[in-house]
Amino acid sequence: MAKQQHQHHTLTEQHTTLALFSDTIITSRNNPKIKQLRTLLKRPERERTGLALIEGLCQVIEALQQPGRVCQLIVAPDVLKSQQAWELVEAYKQQGLPWLYVSADVLECLSLKYAQQGIVAVIPQRWESLKELRLSTGDYWVALEAIQDPGNLGTILRTCDATGCRGLFLLDHAADPYDPVALRASRGAILSRRLVKASFQDFVDWKRLHHYPVIGTSDAAAVHYRQVGYPSPAILLMGSERQGLSQEQQAACDLVVSIPMRGNSDSLNVAVATAVVLYEAIQEDTY
Amino acid sequence: MAKQQHQHHTLTEQHTTLALFSDTIITSRNNPKIKQLRTLLKRPERERTGLALIEGLCQVIEALQQPGRVCQLIVAPDVLKSQQAWELVEAYKQQGLPWLYVSADVLECLSLKYAQQGIVAVIPQRWESLKELRLSTGDYWVALEAIQDPGNLGTILRTCDATGCRGLFLLDHAADPYDPVALRASRGAILSRRLVKASFQDFVDWKRLHHYPVIGTSDAAAVHYRQVGYPSPAILLMGSERQGLSQEQQAACDLVVSIPMRGNSDSLNVAVATAVVLYEAIQEDTY
Repeated sequence: MAKQQHQHHTLTEQHTTLALFSDTIITSRNNPKIKQLRTLLKRPERERTGLALIEGLCQVIEALQQPGRVCQLIVAPDVLKSQQAWELVEAYKQQGLPWLYVSADVLECLSLKYAQQGIVAVIPQRWESLKELRLSTGDYWVALEAIQDPGNLGTILRTCDATGCRGLFLLDHAADPYDPVALRASRGAILSRRLVKASFQDFVDWKRLHHYPVIGTSDAAAVHYRQVGYPSPAILLMGSERQGLSQEQQAACDLVVSIPMRGNSDSLNVAVATAVVLYEAIQEDTY
Repeated sequence: MAKQQHQHHTLTEQHTTLALFSDTIITSRNNPKIKQLRTLLKRPERERTGLALIEGLCQVIEALQQPGRVCQLIVAPDVLKSQQAWELVEAYKQQGLPWLYVSADVLECLSLKYAQQGIVAVIPQRWESLKELRLSTGDYWVALEAIQDPGNLGTILRTCDATGCRGLFLLDHAADPYDPVALRASRGAILSRRLVKASFQDFVDWKRLHHYPVIGTSDAAAVHYRQVGYPSPAILLMGSERQGLSQEQQAACDLVVSIPMRGNSDSLNVAVATAVVLYEAIQEDTY
């Protein structure tokens, strides 16, 4: 794929000229194609179509470098400056896949933060089946019970990437990792981490069937998170922002650890707590 | 103070009655007092007045329990249900300090998230002078260089509270810890942690004068964050979300540590990275 892309070297200037003279640039936010794309900013339409919008130069470049990862490309030719991105855009277009040129203003309405970088992509969501998933030694995963805040969810994905954690189980009614706020916080980790959606009960049945250890966290647990040996593979289970893990959920864990608190605070932000335990769990592995 | 508050026991019903019949309830968002209070949602007016608005039942209760911490109280009597809060409101009113009764709708315009809890307070901002600050053995502080995101800032304050870190240095042009988003993420830690504002240069001059060790973080540092002994007192210095610490800033540190990354990601969220190093630094202390 990388080779194929580099067969289409062209200078930015040439692309811009091409864009200006032979391609239509959509300048109205009310264009039906744009209106359709904008619906992907809302969860119901993302769920109905199985698609999502990603933005940010680094993230879109990473997606374009993964075969089959982008299914539509939206470029503001007056705004996109990156030579590398233009080369990837050209390679993408050669595949005959759909793309649009739009004005800076139109791109802005498809973008949460990085409109000034000039490119947005539509990607198919990727979800894996719980039933078929198997873990190997060295694999760590995080399971989030009913996480509510997409920013926390995205930050946890980013931490998964940094720690080499394979991916996330999203249990019960959770925020959407393809939410623009989650995507922004994930900093591209959505493209490299794996995702599984399940009910808590199905997750427990699956982990029991395969004897995968699950480590929960609770401020009431007697076991200090630094005073245990972490198994591998393992799944770190975190409770929701509001309620943490219920007694029943803790009972389904093989081990429940606590992170000590010293001040007035009785809890940590869930993304912070996840990182603190993850970094402890993986520390025995080689870096 | 606690004793004084409990001299004014009254039942919620009585308070509500009082509110309905003898106190004016402001029902218009355009009331000049309300318009004035709303300006505190913006940073320039917060800086001009040195005040801030806090919301959330737990946070306001905590503020009311600290002598001299609240300088104005705004209550929606039809919404506030907490008996404890009503007792504190009554004790507060007995001090002759200013308060307003407002409708649910008016409270909503002063509130980011917790309007349904029925109470908002105006507090004076508290900042300490760098020059007069001294650290003792066991003290940890966090210094944030030009942090931009108020959510990250608030989350770091919350982590400071959980780890017993004394407070924050906000260096150079930083987000405002009294921003409603920061306050919401801090979960009340704003009321218990200490705050110092300074330029990076003044901070460095001060730490050199007093020989306080500063520990920086950088993904390029050769020293693994788990393979060092952390001094005490100490200050953990974190770079901005975008740029991390510059070479000059790292050179001003006594030690620079790195948090290893395994995936595609080249950095962690700043609040996550702060927590990972803080929990490592304090782990040798007794809990």
